[in-house]
Amino acid sequence: MIVSDKIKALRQLMQRYGWDAAVISGTDPHGSEYLPERWQQRKWISGFTGSFGTVVVTPAHAGLWTDTRYFIQAQRELEGTGFEIHPLRVPGAVDFPEWLAANLPRGGVVGIDGECLANERVRHLESLLHPQDGTVEDRPSFIEEIWHDRPGLPRHPVFMLETKYSGRETRSKMEWLRRQMATKGCTHILLNGLDQIAWLFNVRCRDIPYNPVPVSYALIDENRATLFIAEGKAGEHVSGVLGNSGITVAPYLQVAEVLNGLPENAKIMTDGNTLSYTLYSYLLSRCGKARLLDQPSPVILEKAVKNPVEIEGFRKAYLNDGIAMERFLFWLEKTMEKDIPLTEADTAAKLSWMRTLSEDAMGDSFGYISAYGANAALPHYSAVAGSCSTLQKRGFYLIDSGGHYLYGTTDITRTIPLGPLTQLEREDYTLVLKAMIALSRAVFLRGTKGTHLDMLVRDPLWRHRRNYGHGTGHGTGHFLCVHEGPQDIRMTWKDQDILPGMVTSNEPGMYREGLHGVRHENVLLCKELEENEFGSWLGFETLTVCHIDTSPVIPALLETSGIEWLNLYNRQVYDTLLPYLTYEESRWLKEKTAPIKTD
Amino acid sequence: MIVSDKIKALRQLMQRYGWDAAVISGTDPHGSEYLPERWQQRKWISGFTGSFGTVVVTPAHAGLWTDTRYFIQAQRELEGTGFEIHPLRVPGAVDFPEWLAANLPRGGVVGIDGECLANERVRHLESLLHPQDGTVEDRPSFIEEIWHDRPGLPRHPVFMLETKYSGRETRSKMEWLRRQMATKGCTHILLNGLDQIAWLFNVRCRDIPYNPVPVSYALIDENRATLFIAEGKAGEHVSGVLGNSGITVAPYLQVAEVLNGLPENAKIMTDGNTLSYTLYSYLLSRCGKARLLDQPSPVILEKAVKNPVEIEGFRKAYLNDGIAMERFLFWLEKTMEKDIPLTEADTAAKLSWMRTLSEDAMGDSFGYISAYGANAALPHYSAVAGSCSTLQKRGFYLIDSGGHYLYGTTDITRTIPLGPLTQLEREDYTLVLKAMIALSRAVFLRGTKGTHLDMLVRDPLWRHRRNYGHGTGHGTGHFLCVHEGPQDIRMTWKDQDILPGMVTSNEPGMYREGLHGVRHENVLLCKELEENEFGSWLGFETLTVCHIDTSPVIPALLETSGIEWLNLYNRQVYDTLLPYLTYEESRWLKEKTAPIKTD
Repeated sequence: MIVSDKIKALRQLMQRYGWDAAVISGTDPHGSEYLPERWQQRKWISGFTGSFGTVVVTPAHAGLWTDTRYFIQAQRELEGTGFEIHPLRVPGAVDFPEWLAANLPRGGVVGIDGECLANERVRHLESLLHPQDGTVEDRPSFIEEIWHDRPGLPRHPVFMLETKYSGRETRSKMEWLRRQMATKGCTHILLNGLDQIAWLFNVRCRDIPYNPVPVSYALIDENRATLFIAEGKAGEHVSGVLGNSGITVAPYLQVAEVLNGLPENAKIMTDGNTLSYTLYSYLLSRCGKARLLDQPSPVILEKAVKNPVEIEGFRKAYLNDGIAMERFLFWLEKTMEKDIPLTEADTAAKLSWMRTLSEDAMGDSFGYISAYGANAALPHYSAVAGSCSTLQKRGFYLIDSGGHYLYGTTDITRTIPLGPLTQLEREDYTLVLKAMIALSRAVFLRGTKGTHLDMLVRDPLWRHRRNYGHGTGHGTGHFLCVHEGPQDIRMTWKDQDILPGMVTSNEPGMYREGLHGVRHENVLLCKELEENEFGSWLGFETLTVCHIDTSPVIPALLETSGIEWLNLYNRQVYDTLLPYLTYEESRWLKEKTAPIKTD
Repeated sequence: MIVSDKIKALRQLMQRYGWDAAVISGTDPHGSEYLPERWQQRKWISGFTGSFGTVVVTPAHAGLWTDTRYFIQAQRELEGTGFEIHPLRVPGAVDFPEWLAANLPRGGVVGIDGECLANERVRHLESLLHPQDGTVEDRPSFIEEIWHDRPGLPRHPVFMLETKYSGRETRSKMEWLRRQMATKGCTHILLNGLDQIAWLFNVRCRDIPYNPVPVSYALIDENRATLFIAEGKAGEHVSGVLGNSGITVAPYLQVAEVLNGLPENAKIMTDGNTLSYTLYSYLLSRCGKARLLDQPSPVILEKAVKNPVEIEGFRKAYLNDGIAMERFLFWLEKTMEKDIPLTEADTAAKLSWMRTLSEDAMGDSFGYISAYGANAALPHYSAVAGSCSTLQKRGFYLIDSGGHYLYGTTDITRTIPLGPLTQLEREDYTLVLKAMIALSRAVFLRGTKGTHLDMLVRDPLWRHRRNYGHGTGHGTGHFLCVHEGPQDIRMTWKDQDILPGMVTSNEPGMYREGLHGVRHENVLLCKELEENEFGSWLGFETLTVCHIDTSPVIPALLETSGIEWLNLYNRQVYDTLLPYLTYEESRWLKEKTAPIKTD
């Protein structure tokens, strides 16, 4: 079926239902970053493969709403399909709810799959449609009437993450959660965030690319808990272990039925910003607004503050990751020296394979960004085998990658000089490094937010009137999603303290269209330093163990304090990794980590 | 009448009215920082002279609510009066509305003077009282039944600020304001902020200490405008000039009557956060909620972005202020050398007098903070003649002062070494200077908020695990209030860009209880630097022209970039002021501004 046939079929369906528009969502019922094939509805109908976008079809129009990251890709992928691209995150952008409100006839009906749209989003659409008597009609999985071979729910087996890795028994997490419920006067909490459920029950799974979580819901009340997953995913062992913690396994699709059967006096906590419109509507009609506590899940913050076992696990994960990275960098240099042609896809595949050699490796933590030269100026560039660039012996090669281990998840970016560099390349490399070091060395009072810290990172660049258009840091999960909340480090205000135990990336960059891209990324553990008359002082431990190439550095720009940090860091990398390297590798790394003179 | 008699009389009044509590406000109908005697009700009844506090009296209790700045002063001033102090801005603080809700009998009545309490504040109190059937009874000026010699409205004459000083004709400001009203669909705007009215109508007055504004309201509609001031304040000339801009002068007390007579279809803009409860209630009953647009006044931002004439005026004001400051510092050093005893009050009076010698001086812009040694550890210390400290030939003397000129308002703090210093004094002096310099040199993208910039200032201190407990900067008015919004530079989030034309203080500090206090304050003008591919870059011009003593500086702590800034700044101060100094003064200043070696 080609795209135009799919649109035609959709329009016939719309006519049958009396819809004036249909929304095809690009998300799943869990607010996930990566989706199983089943929920890639927007990709199926349009052919657009980006990670963010929504399709809206009316009798006369087919539109894709996506943001700046994907304009070029969307144009390429949608060429000839008749789709119009509606740009988001640009001045004057009109999102699809506003577009529908402006373009629908009076009393228009918008068909949606309410399971794949967050409640808040649909309520917003409704509020825009109501003044002109427009309505939303929720038909979960309506896409199946035209997508006949739509895949079912993923059915990978669930496995337990042992306490020696998780650091905290499910029972203890449940007790904590029930105390949270009690302080809010709630009898139940419904969780739909997959990494929250995986953390709470200490389960993992391979249902989704890059995110080791099971497709699931969880309902916890004062005495019991239910994990809703597709049938057959929990074997006898898993069911037994969960049962010992008071957790019953039930079929994924039963969640709606169970919510409909909640006791009359139930007071339920859930997050309307991520819960699907369909389930939220069930709760609303069952409990009423007064007995629905709509707020972000307390699990998000609790999960972000890592326990001592998780922290030790992260250190081990970064040690293994550092070995893989250094072997890769050694191999890359030697292969380039031999003039063996390497594409961006080749190098990414090699690094991914290097990671599999590490003990307890559990796969890549996201799709690598492997970008040579001007390609690296696109922060989210994706190299496709067969059409990507070949590395040359000049300029920069950037690789942003990470892996899962049973004891942690990693994320690292290195910008690697492959030969002669321009003055601008060296300046950008040095200033971005200076920015990264500023955060690594930060000392801050308890109560400091990511917004405050972001300024420290940008200052070295801003003094040279340069900037990057993305955030500086995101939380990372413990053998979970490589991107997790609640903390981040960016200009936009977020009222969330950076707390001891949080693991956050530190990744400033610089992008020159048509020329080059630079990004340095280490991952930081927030730690307590000391308490004095002024308050409680916090700082960071760098978890990443992989040298930073000093050859592009302009020492005068980095300044003494930056050089001292870099020399110490590289020396520590060498000392830490030495026992795990071959003789050739260690000789090479010693040279790579030789200190810059501070004079 | 002593305090206990006043409380007794108030309780009799409460009984007569059937009140279970009475609130005596410490503010005026205009949200002013400084108050005419008439509105110092809280001071009259309690004897507490601090700038912030509220009194609540019940049959069994008399309480003063104030914050950390005033605990010691309040304890001293209220001793023996039976008043209990309720601390605010401390963990677990309970403000008076919450206290009343918890301590009043069911159905209790709280008597207030609604003219002297902001609408939002009373609505909050009402919302807390309603669940237990409590109510608020508004009796404006009820205090007069016991305060028989309460002063009337201040009656200083209003004078016009000529366009050569204001830089913009009233007519042009009114046109701009009417455009703002039109975009919001409003027919009227009611202003109660005194500096807003003074700015809009280009009038000034001496009604209030330190703030050159008339006590007034302003009501502007699509064609006319009314200035409500006490009778006799506007002479023939002022009335004529205002009349030419379409502004009618009306009696201050007529404002309520005029609001009651608004046309039925009026839609009025006002700010319920500062407008009095009494007037807001008039508007509400006249217009209804739907025709009342409750939002911060657009005048606040427009006033904060200075026009070119105001900016030139500020430069001139700071030149005059610098001459006064340097003469004062020269005098101080010479007088100390002669072992003539000087108290904190003496030196403050001397500096105030030095300012009056400047051309077009219009008085002090606030009550000076003149603090020697450990007194300077209290950021808001007030030296009282007769009981204050005498300067010694060791340690630091801190003076935070400012003046009004027809063309601008100044604010400056210098910390002056009077003899031998401790290592800690030198460290704190240097690090606070480093912090101040960091902001002076800042380069930032349009869109940056004060919250972002605050981090740059604190970073040099935080690296040494030191901090100060106040904000870094506030806006300053143009021959208006020395403190004005909307911008500030502090940790707390405020969604307000720092914009070209804004004039903001830069005053980090360090306070060591029982030892010393350090603060350096310059005032900065935000300016455009350049536009490039990354956006529009902004920076600061330092307006303050007064040398910073280099003798306490530890060069290694200040670092090269800090030393370079300081040397350049001091040289510019010398070059700028040289033509205005005597031979002795200039020789002295040359020595004071000699560069620190950077080696």
